[in-house]
Amino acid sequence: MAKKMRLFIPGPTPVPPQVAEAMARPLIGHRTQEFADLYRRLEEKLRKVFGTQNEVYVLTCSGTGGMEAAVANVVNPGDRVLALVTGKFGERFAELAKIYGAAVDALEFGWGNPVDVALVEARLKSQKYKAVLATHNETSTTVVNDIRAIGELTRRYGALLLVDAVSSLGGIEIEADAWGVDILVTASQKALMVPPGLAMVSVSPRAWEAINEGRAPRYYLSLPAAKKSLTKFNTPYTPAVSLFAGLDVALDMILDEGLENVYARHRIFAQATRAAVRALGLKLLAPDACASPVVTGVWAPEGMNADDLRRLLLKEYGVLLAGGQAQLKGRIFRISHMGYIDAVDLLGALGVLEIGLQKFGYPVTLGAGVAAAQAVLAGGGQDV
Amino acid sequence: MAKKMRLFIPGPTPVPPQVAEAMARPLIGHRTQEFADLYRRLEEKLRKVFGTQNEVYVLTCSGTGGMEAAVANVVNPGDRVLALVTGKFGERFAELAKIYGAAVDALEFGWGNPVDVALVEARLKSQKYKAVLATHNETSTTVVNDIRAIGELTRRYGALLLVDAVSSLGGIEIEADAWGVDILVTASQKALMVPPGLAMVSVSPRAWEAINEGRAPRYYLSLPAAKKSLTKFNTPYTPAVSLFAGLDVALDMILDEGLENVYARHRIFAQATRAAVRALGLKLLAPDACASPVVTGVWAPEGMNADDLRRLLLKEYGVLLAGGQAQLKGRIFRISHMGYIDAVDLLGALGVLEIGLQKFGYPVTLGAGVAAAQAVLAGGGQDV
Repeated sequence: MAKKMRLFIPGPTPVPPQVAEAMARPLIGHRTQEFADLYRRLEEKLRKVFGTQNEVYVLTCSGTGGMEAAVANVVNPGDRVLALVTGKFGERFAELAKIYGAAVDALEFGWGNPVDVALVEARLKSQKYKAVLATHNETSTTVVNDIRAIGELTRRYGALLLVDAVSSLGGIEIEADAWGVDILVTASQKALMVPPGLAMVSVSPRAWEAINEGRAPRYYLSLPAAKKSLTKFNTPYTPAVSLFAGLDVALDMILDEGLENVYARHRIFAQATRAAVRALGLKLLAPDACASPVVTGVWAPEGMNADDLRRLLLKEYGVLLAGGQAQLKGRIFRISHMGYIDAVDLLGALGVLEIGLQKFGYPVTLGAGVAAAQAVLAGGGQDV
Repeated sequence: MAKKMRLFIPGPTPVPPQVAEAMARPLIGHRTQEFADLYRRLEEKLRKVFGTQNEVYVLTCSGTGGMEAAVANVVNPGDRVLALVTGKFGERFAELAKIYGAAVDALEFGWGNPVDVALVEARLKSQKYKAVLATHNETSTTVVNDIRAIGELTRRYGALLLVDAVSSLGGIEIEADAWGVDILVTASQKALMVPPGLAMVSVSPRAWEAINEGRAPRYYLSLPAAKKSLTKFNTPYTPAVSLFAGLDVALDMILDEGLENVYARHRIFAQATRAAVRALGLKLLAPDACASPVVTGVWAPEGMNADDLRRLLLKEYGVLLAGGQAQLKGRIFRISHMGYIDAVDLLGALGVLEIGLQKFGYPVTLGAGVAAAQAVLAGGGQDV
């Protein structure tokens, strides 16, 4: 049978048919009242998901473009920046700051560990930083960082906090204002259930002070330009109109379900997945205390190449799991349960994963992992 | 989360995105060369799936319309017709013949039993019939009948054989010419993976002799009109153009996979489902020897209303199972594995079924049914 493509990667995630339908509607012109109405609705809903009273700008670019917008608008050559690195995306944030001429101190916590807040405080005490760069959900290591605690420190020590929430926003709780996040960046193709192509950025008043003194070259990713256009609910350059239309519907779905319910659902799916992994005798990449609610990393069994397993699952069952990045390549696989994934999807994917493991000679009691996940789902997890 | 609607009913079945995409293309006019080309392609592919050298007419109506076309064109008032009844759809075929004035002898085999070919032969020996009406796959009882054996009898005793293959064609082997089926009827929304709205009918030269002497009123469902139009690859009345476009793609998918592979896949999925049902200690509706490869019927546990279980699965997990019809209402549920259903779908559905059974107090070892299905799927069933 022609395979059903089943995305269990941490973005792009499956697009709900309601969202696909909205994107397939006839295009509207982007310099029209219709577009302004769309952007107005959308921005109001984004504020709720961001947990902010500030404006949220929608940029037509990927999440990396949003991260660059955060850096390019704030960092001037020579600025001291502290980058908290817990994996590949933390490294990328640090690299961006270097490219814009910052003097970057990278605090590396080791792949698989979360940010150690005590170490961050020690640094902030010993040295004045203009900004701290942090990753909320580090998909490469399936670790979630304590942005709330980091935000307390950056406020106390007078640094701006720039957060990459690309793979978390809409799936994991975050409160830009309450937690003191000055620039919060996310993207469309993760927990927000929309195809790639949009980044969203919120900016605090403290961040605007820095942005207004920005000297780095910035044009397409200029936040002042985005702010100016937003006064008319417009964009400085051509927006990806159909993705705006899809995001409008996706945000309705999220807000209709209720943010607390959405977060609880992701936590329960992570618990179910982790219970399945343990029941199969496999090792989890991230410890429970900092485990991501949206993606679960698993060490391949001794002697098995995780990428061979992934290839088999894709070829035989259409199930695409994520692999390991950089030093984890071939050694881990990652199961995303982010966005539009339901119990049938998760149990079915775990079911074919068990078959795949068995085909590679790993001793599997068929159904054992599924049963552990079922028990969590049937009980509603520890949350409900 | 907004539920994913998951159809595990014996039609309409899930529509592949390739088919949905074809149906969403701009409409073509139905009196154009483009439509004639489409119908020509489609009819050629249908002959392969029907196993016939004869023409196959595509009517814009549901499967019942196709069954009526078979009866209305062949049966004259007073004709003796033998109806082989193994469930609700066998009853419908008999009822249609009565409505058209036939003297119908209904051979009832009891719900859950297949046609007993010896009894059919005894009847045909003792009485001359113009036509025999048979159901290939009786979805109401999840039983498949031996059309090949029935066809040998109807040829030997000089009766026409009219077969309802609405829920089997494209999922279960059938060979119109080799098996001596004079009129074979199917519909778009079952194993052919297209939304409802089309019936397809093949007609043998023997059947044409009867049709040409037909005296029943027939207009929209006239097979002579369909035959005449097919000489120009057109239809007598407005066809459901977008469904034709979808069927064109669906038939490509089936023929690309290969009919033998499609049939084997359905048999394996039935084996997997039946193994799961047994592992859960539940009773199957149909015995193995005549079990349908495309839909599996299961007795609800003692004291449980099958429809309560079905409502829970729909509400909580978006999984729609079929219920029992007529005397089986509330007593059975049916799991369709017809058409565009893959291993992830089936294992996921069995996983939530187990949770549902447990929620109603039935003692379930979570994962036990899934494990039995996994074992069949991992081994490729007994077929491969």
